[in-house]
Amino acid sequence: MKDRQIQTLADAVLGRIFVPLEASARHVHLTEAQCQALFGSELIPDRPLSQPGQYLSKQRVSIIGPKGRFDRVAVLGPARKNAQVEISMTDSRILGLTPPIRQSGDVTNSPGIILEGPKGRIGIQSGVIIAQRHLHLTPEAATLFAVKDNQIVKLQTYTARPTEFQDVVVRVSPSFSNAAHLDFDEANACGMKNGDLGRIVP
Amino acid sequence: MKDRQIQTLADAVLGRIFVPLEASARHVHLTEAQCQALFGSELIPDRPLSQPGQYLSKQRVSIIGPKGRFDRVAVLGPARKNAQVEISMTDSRILGLTPPIRQSGDVTNSPGIILEGPKGRIGIQSGVIIAQRHLHLTPEAATLFAVKDNQIVKLQTYTARPTEFQDVVVRVSPSFSNAAHLDFDEANACGMKNGDLGRIVP
Repeated sequence: MKDRQIQTLADAVLGRIFVPLEASARHVHLTEAQCQALFGSELIPDRPLSQPGQYLSKQRVSIIGPKGRFDRVAVLGPARKNAQVEISMTDSRILGLTPPIRQSGDVTNSPGIILEGPKGRIGIQSGVIIAQRHLHLTPEAATLFAVKDNQIVKLQTYTARPTEFQDVVVRVSPSFSNAAHLDFDEANACGMKNGDLGRIVP
Repeated sequence: MKDRQIQTLADAVLGRIFVPLEASARHVHLTEAQCQALFGSELIPDRPLSQPGQYLSKQRVSIIGPKGRFDRVAVLGPARKNAQVEISMTDSRILGLTPPIRQSGDVTNSPGIILEGPKGRIGIQSGVIIAQRHLHLTPEAATLFAVKDNQIVKLQTYTARPTEFQDVVVRVSPSFSNAAHLDFDEANACGMKNGDLGRIVP
């Protein structure tokens, strides 16, 4: 076989056992109105993310909490119906906030924060969360791994510091590509490097 | 039984199943000569640490890497024969270093760093490590948990984000008190709070 065929075959076999691990840095989702207030324009895509249709925008924003701030925080597109600020537990201590550990989109009773862009400064009343570690799976992969949307599973990492993360929530959608999303605390705790793999443990 | 008797009994029962989890912040160990060079004095104890005889000193030091620095870093006493700087993987990225994951004392081929105190600045040629997660156990606890010095075990955390840490090294000494030591990446990845417990999984 040619190298490329071997690679394709290897990927197919690996994809039946493993899920790529990806680390999510702190980032912000904004509404269209908030983009106008902060940047005076809509979001400008910079590069696509692993999840189809999602992109890193060229814009950056500062997030300002009661005890500290982060500048040049990534803004992900497309714009959403509600603002959401996803940070790590380490970040939360620097900002002086105690956000809940939540699935994306579930921001009820989460703390607010101040957002600052080149064109203005706005306060949001809620929206700061620590993203619950999660798996993005296509329906085909979910069938293959015998898991369902919203199921809680364990994730064994094959990394420098092997770790079994528990309380990992499965998200299934035809618009996803297969990936396990960890935050930077989790990625560093398991010594994750680009290309590392994980395995779903039921 | 009186409350205190109940507490003592509960502690004894819990101590046969669980190990307290402790988070280690970045810190520095210094030689006596380095203390003189940095502070112009020997270490002055501030408060004792959980391990008998170990203490947090009143002195603080700056650690300076090729890409970044941390100020007011804790210096632990008593002085040692070799300097050692223990940081998290998150810290290592900020400093611009790639230290190995090692047991305390094993600093061969580890990167150096610049140390700065109120009385001077010194460079060390090696000594920066990411501490391998580890358990301190008394010989009695090691017998109880059926583990030996230098054995690699798993540690199940009972924390906000339950996690099984693997590659955890057991250290046994009559001078220890029982505790699992995680760095801040690991503590935040598992959502650890003061008083949280872990269980050794053989």
